[in-house]
Amino acid sequence: MAQLIEGNAVIGQSGGPTAVINQSLVGVVEGLLAEGAGHFGNPVKRVLGMRHGVTGLTKGQLVDLSDKSQEELNAVAAAPSAALGSTRDKPDEAYCERIFHACEKNDIRYFFYIGGNDSSDTCRIVNELANESGYELRCFHVPKTVDNDLPVNDHTPGFPSAARFVATAFRADNLDNASIPGIKINVVMGRHAGFLTAAAALARDPEGDPDDGPHLICVPEVAFDLDRFVDKVAEVYDRLGRCQIAVSEGIQDRDGQSIGAMLIQGEADAHGNVQLSGSGALGDQLANVLKERLKPASGKTPRVRADTLGYLQRCWPDPSPVDADEARRAGKYAAKVALEGDLDGSVAILRTGKGYDGEPYRSELDRIHLHDVAAKTKHMDPAFMHGDFDVSKKFLDYCGPLIGELPKFGRL
Amino acid sequence: MAQLIEGNAVIGQSGGPTAVINQSLVGVVEGLLAEGAGHFGNPVKRVLGMRHGVTGLTKGQLVDLSDKSQEELNAVAAAPSAALGSTRDKPDEAYCERIFHACEKNDIRYFFYIGGNDSSDTCRIVNELANESGYELRCFHVPKTVDNDLPVNDHTPGFPSAARFVATAFRADNLDNASIPGIKINVVMGRHAGFLTAAAALARDPEGDPDDGPHLICVPEVAFDLDRFVDKVAEVYDRLGRCQIAVSEGIQDRDGQSIGAMLIQGEADAHGNVQLSGSGALGDQLANVLKERLKPASGKTPRVRADTLGYLQRCWPDPSPVDADEARRAGKYAAKVALEGDLDGSVAILRTGKGYDGEPYRSELDRIHLHDVAAKTKHMDPAFMHGDFDVSKKFLDYCGPLIGELPKFGRL
Repeated sequence: MAQLIEGNAVIGQSGGPTAVINQSLVGVVEGLLAEGAGHFGNPVKRVLGMRHGVTGLTKGQLVDLSDKSQEELNAVAAAPSAALGSTRDKPDEAYCERIFHACEKNDIRYFFYIGGNDSSDTCRIVNELANESGYELRCFHVPKTVDNDLPVNDHTPGFPSAARFVATAFRADNLDNASIPGIKINVVMGRHAGFLTAAAALARDPEGDPDDGPHLICVPEVAFDLDRFVDKVAEVYDRLGRCQIAVSEGIQDRDGQSIGAMLIQGEADAHGNVQLSGSGALGDQLANVLKERLKPASGKTPRVRADTLGYLQRCWPDPSPVDADEARRAGKYAAKVALEGDLDGSVAILRTGKGYDGEPYRSELDRIHLHDVAAKTKHMDPAFMHGDFDVSKKFLDYCGPLIGELPKFGRL
Repeated sequence: MAQLIEGNAVIGQSGGPTAVINQSLVGVVEGLLAEGAGHFGNPVKRVLGMRHGVTGLTKGQLVDLSDKSQEELNAVAAAPSAALGSTRDKPDEAYCERIFHACEKNDIRYFFYIGGNDSSDTCRIVNELANESGYELRCFHVPKTVDNDLPVNDHTPGFPSAARFVATAFRADNLDNASIPGIKINVVMGRHAGFLTAAAALARDPEGDPDDGPHLICVPEVAFDLDRFVDKVAEVYDRLGRCQIAVSEGIQDRDGQSIGAMLIQGEADAHGNVQLSGSGALGDQLANVLKERLKPASGKTPRVRADTLGYLQRCWPDPSPVDADEARRAGKYAAKVALEGDLDGSVAILRTGKGYDGEPYRSELDRIHLHDVAAKTKHMDPAFMHGDFDVSKKFLDYCGPLIGELPKFGRL
């Protein structure tokens, strides 16, 4: 094992926040300070937090996390959103140089970045710059994304809590829709991956009514055809007098064109992505199409409503217990590995206990290489779908153990 | 006391469901069956439920509630939405005649209708028809509306739970907005009354950051002027670099024209109302206006997002404990009064303990006349506002005790 170099550690949070990203933040702090900052044998002198990720680091906006009490840390860990502030900056090579120089200037030898695949790419570039300069810098990425689209990981911290919110929302909204029947579209986050939209299926209580929603699930991985969609809605509506629909904001046609982007006249962000969240346009447009096209024999326009579940999906303060625990452990694990030797990397969650068929759910953490996760995207396994408009038992088995117990509702 | 006439009781649920409307349903059943249906001395032979309110009653779609176990009733009471199904039908005189005949046909002598002011008006007309015909029929309205717009009542069942959801949503979303700063609009239900939008103010933790949102609150009771709105947003944005805004779906200009209706090309319902819920159009349009008009000196368009909180406001399964208790008690109280003599009416919640300044919150129920509540609407007391874009301490004192404890979040 190489000699550990003495210096400061810095932690940042990046990208869309989640309900448990602060668990990972606190996990890193706890892992680094298990024996006290500057304690004999601990190479970490101070633990600093970046305000708004690398944006704050390059501007010298750092906050000292070394002296927080366990009580303070626990309160922060339980709070949704990024307690240090987050950033949408996606650094290029020149920006990463500035990050690297800020590390040198602040005697930073341990660099932790909690985020999605863009954040792991930042880690990777900063790591390479440090290696090229012969500057000792341990770089660790801690995974975070409600989209669940990081490779290698069984799932990513943040996803189970968002999935819990989505499933709870669909379960409650299904009763609302049954009480005043109509067509109800709920638009779910997920620009490229349909995991979160698919999680709506967990709203169906296996002991509940077999006619419970969601009745149709539309994910980006299945090419969206408007005519087929209208036909399927009509089929369900004719049968049940209502239809609850889960639509991913990222649905696209067979040519990969985003349906939302085609309907929304919004600005593109710094990455060239059109704004899909924070707008109700996709749901509203789909609702308008259904109103126009679905006039049953009576000639009466069906009642069609659309909700876009919005930012509450990633910040609702009722996290999945599994998620809160794993997010904390992922942070601690990154700190532990960084303090064990000259390793860099990302943390991956591996499932070691299925969580179904009588086997309890268990997970372990592993170190993976930054280039295994950096700027890569995972999509839904086709075996997670059952036809084009529903998920399979395999998906329910996969996702169910992650989200915790949902409220059960009595019926008449 | 008049001789109580023997017969069946019927209960219906009407209008937009809430998180606690089933508490009231179960409360009526419990109140009627306290001594057992058909028990010696109990004039109620059977307790029937209307499927989808008066729609089901007139079609003979009735369900027997007399034989439900306490366990079944408790499970139903805890479920959001209308377990019997609800209806948007607003009966006219001829429709009420059909309702009245359905009562005669089913030997119904006790009629309970849980709903808003339209439902109390239905009760009133059916009651008058029965009186004119000399048919003994006790008619009771049990209040329910997330809009909190029924007169006489200190507040209405359903409102505190919706307010709890709104306040929780704003508290969590405020952290999200602080972590990636920008302008965030959240559109809140409330066609004519601003109570629910005003409840967003309870998101601010008195022990939290004084710069916490919501920073602007726009209710229907204050004429909405787009120029002033843009100026206020700019002022907050310049000061804090962000702005979280609560906007009622029912905001209107000084001539009483709905801002939402002007922006939304939706269908009008049977009452001539334009659809405001189940669409993100108002928030999206306001966001577009802000993007266009707010280009700071840098020329950069600020990040503006809009969420419409949607139907989750009325069905989220985490009711206010005060609300769940009061809704149950209101149902029981209506049954109790109906069984005490020849009285009709509505139930009103009166506040008998302030719930602030060291005085515990307490409420009592009272019988009021149907014409005191029927088809009438209450608006926000002007003293509940502080300026045009915030609520007063008086409102916080009023609303705070109703919604229960909110989660508290740690900060860095």
